[in-house]
Amino acid sequence: MKLDAVLTQIDQDLPQATDRLLDFLRIPSISTDPAYKADCDAAADWLVADLQSLGIDASKRPTPGHPMVVGHVGDSGPHVLFYGHYDVQPVDPLDLWDRDPFDPQVEDTAKGPVIRGRGSADDKGQLMTFVEACRAWIAVNGELPCRITFFFEGEEESGSPSLIPYMNENADELKADVALICDTGMFGDGTPTIVTMLRGMLQEEITITGPDKDLHSGMYGGAAMNPIRVLSKIIANLHDEDGRITVPGFYDGVPELSNSVRDQWESLGFDHSQFLGEVGLSQPAGEKGRTALEMIWSRPTCEVNGIIGGYTGDGFKTVLPSKASAKISFRLVGTQDPFKLRDAFREQVRAQLPADCTVDFKGHGASPASQMSTELKAFEQARTALSDEWPNPAAYVGSGGSIPIAGYFKEILNMDAMLIGFGKDDDAIHSPNEKYDVESFHKGIRSWARILDKLTE
Amino acid sequence: MKLDAVLTQIDQDLPQATDRLLDFLRIPSISTDPAYKADCDAAADWLVADLQSLGIDASKRPTPGHPMVVGHVGDSGPHVLFYGHYDVQPVDPLDLWDRDPFDPQVEDTAKGPVIRGRGSADDKGQLMTFVEACRAWIAVNGELPCRITFFFEGEEESGSPSLIPYMNENADELKADVALICDTGMFGDGTPTIVTMLRGMLQEEITITGPDKDLHSGMYGGAAMNPIRVLSKIIANLHDEDGRITVPGFYDGVPELSNSVRDQWESLGFDHSQFLGEVGLSQPAGEKGRTALEMIWSRPTCEVNGIIGGYTGDGFKTVLPSKASAKISFRLVGTQDPFKLRDAFREQVRAQLPADCTVDFKGHGASPASQMSTELKAFEQARTALSDEWPNPAAYVGSGGSIPIAGYFKEILNMDAMLIGFGKDDDAIHSPNEKYDVESFHKGIRSWARILDKLTE
Repeated sequence: MKLDAVLTQIDQDLPQATDRLLDFLRIPSISTDPAYKADCDAAADWLVADLQSLGIDASKRPTPGHPMVVGHVGDSGPHVLFYGHYDVQPVDPLDLWDRDPFDPQVEDTAKGPVIRGRGSADDKGQLMTFVEACRAWIAVNGELPCRITFFFEGEEESGSPSLIPYMNENADELKADVALICDTGMFGDGTPTIVTMLRGMLQEEITITGPDKDLHSGMYGGAAMNPIRVLSKIIANLHDEDGRITVPGFYDGVPELSNSVRDQWESLGFDHSQFLGEVGLSQPAGEKGRTALEMIWSRPTCEVNGIIGGYTGDGFKTVLPSKASAKISFRLVGTQDPFKLRDAFREQVRAQLPADCTVDFKGHGASPASQMSTELKAFEQARTALSDEWPNPAAYVGSGGSIPIAGYFKEILNMDAMLIGFGKDDDAIHSPNEKYDVESFHKGIRSWARILDKLTE
Repeated sequence: MKLDAVLTQIDQDLPQATDRLLDFLRIPSISTDPAYKADCDAAADWLVADLQSLGIDASKRPTPGHPMVVGHVGDSGPHVLFYGHYDVQPVDPLDLWDRDPFDPQVEDTAKGPVIRGRGSADDKGQLMTFVEACRAWIAVNGELPCRITFFFEGEEESGSPSLIPYMNENADELKADVALICDTGMFGDGTPTIVTMLRGMLQEEITITGPDKDLHSGMYGGAAMNPIRVLSKIIANLHDEDGRITVPGFYDGVPELSNSVRDQWESLGFDHSQFLGEVGLSQPAGEKGRTALEMIWSRPTCEVNGIIGGYTGDGFKTVLPSKASAKISFRLVGTQDPFKLRDAFREQVRAQLPADCTVDFKGHGASPASQMSTELKAFEQARTALSDEWPNPAAYVGSGGSIPIAGYFKEILNMDAMLIGFGKDDDAIHSPNEKYDVESFHKGIRSWARILDKLTE
């Protein structure tokens, strides 16, 4: 059987596949920081070269930001588009890393070997599971079982500013029967997972200006408005006493879970105290009366992702600063409208400005939530293939993360997306010491090999 | 007359005096940043050498932090101690400076020539007005008209941690009839000023910890407590709707102004709209029903001097941070007890911590407010001398700044202090582009020459 030979090839080639991933991880492709522009470009080149080595017609496509990588192979069978992103998160605080984030290695841990380094799980390691599955298919059979379009972007961690224009301009080239996205995690060890609900995202950066220059708090303290105080009050007012978000109209379009979904989720046996306990917490901090699982899969949120103002170095400086700013993000669900909420949020902020203060807004991305069409045949095919590979049967779940691309595939290309990923909760994506389990990498490659096979049935 | 010759000498020596100050300003003696430890030491050495060149018995005295400089000269006449500080504020944000903060120069401006550079006004330029007055006295008369102890510290901008222990251990050496301090400003152009009320200071740094590592807000957002949110709420709650500070017992010991002081202050014709307008503001932001002058001279305040947490670089990162911290200072008046208020503040913060959050406090300095004994003969002598030098008669005023040393002189050495300085409101101390008017420097030197003469009457 073709598939068995492919799986054997994958097992034998694992050391080489790992070396290729380590090579890819050494490129510091931080998309959000302009200082790494050339590195993002280098990561795109790396992918093009790797795809070309498999006989795939791949090329780098310029955008106003970081380039896309697009590749095509095959001309018969079902047509799938595979999406991943080659850019990675910034690495600060650097002093909390145990090693250079861009000098990756395989490490033995109590839970088994891991690939340590920035991007190992988000998303270079994950996207390479698919590429390696293709490599094995080609090595064994000389071709792939279906027609594949590869589509990699380099701006996922910085709001994907070029993505919508690019998809609009290249819709004909990108359209396929179904999209495959590998940028999500598994629900617990051994339970492969297809995400069918994704939260949307609204990202806003606000800067409050009080006095037109930094002042001495001895000379002006008390008399001049302090922008940190204004900003703190605005942030404090974003939630009410019950943990609900106060932006006017925020809960318009937020659905309650159906009983059947609630029942299915309860049957998953999610361990709430372990989930919080792993990060040193004991109680869910969001809306009163909701479980942590509801909060992260099905409820909208508002988080402050960064704040800065005044003197933040060692020691003390009695400055009364001119400016203070914060990065605030909202995760959206159901039919919440990110653009309407952006307006409502900005209006709410402006209404709280005291005399003599001004505010500047910078929008960083806005995307609605997604709900996949699980009745499609491909969903059950993938679910079966995943269940064949892993100890437990595959689960359909919601996800707290926002992967706007899934919504865009539906909206722009009228194509459903299957979000299948092999990340673990302790991968520390977006944090110091990010890792990807070797098991995730290995069985992830095997999973895609099985899925490609199953999709042709 | 001896004084006239001294004043002439001062006028003739001004270019050389300015060069000496520029030389002193080139030493980046930022006390709050450990990276500049050697530079603080170099600034102390510079002062020792300069005093020794005048025949003053000066030496550097070690402390656990930056060294003191102590010098003695003379053995008859009234005994005054002169205090200043050779350390300077940090320079960030560096990009708002028009030139290197430590490459000072004399610049012509629309308001006359200024000495531009970090420390020009706070406090190197000010302390050198006194040293230069002594140099001129010695040059003309071979000696000073009274006995002088010089006392310079290098930790004023970082909370003076070594000061109290040093004064306690060296009380006998430092005790004089009266202290002179040159670290304050003038009340408007042409009106020399003796500060008779000084606010105290309480400086606290607080760090809130929520989850034990930075998290992905998609995975944990809504479910894990965000420390920026907690910190913002604590800061927002520090003031009530009327701008009053909510720390329990905060207003214990805060006196109302007497009618006579209120009348004197009103007679000064303080231009509130100009004071605020100069920094781009129009309305006093503090307690309702108080004027800006009351707020800065006689009312206690609470300001947030710095805040940081999460991702603060370019772009956006959907991190849910582990920690957020703020530097908060309180200006104190009357008999407010800084140590009692420290406890009350910390208790107030702890009481607001939600489950799973912890707080760390770091104290950065605590000093009570001061009220000088203006009935002392020296006060009227200095007032007369200053009135002789400047177009307008000298004023007794309050000051919003906190100069804890004045309180320590009283408490530890039972010695009153006269705070006489020549800074201007637009000197931008603690800000980018700090400057000191050449007029302040020149007439400041002449003022001290006159005061030394008058004190011997």
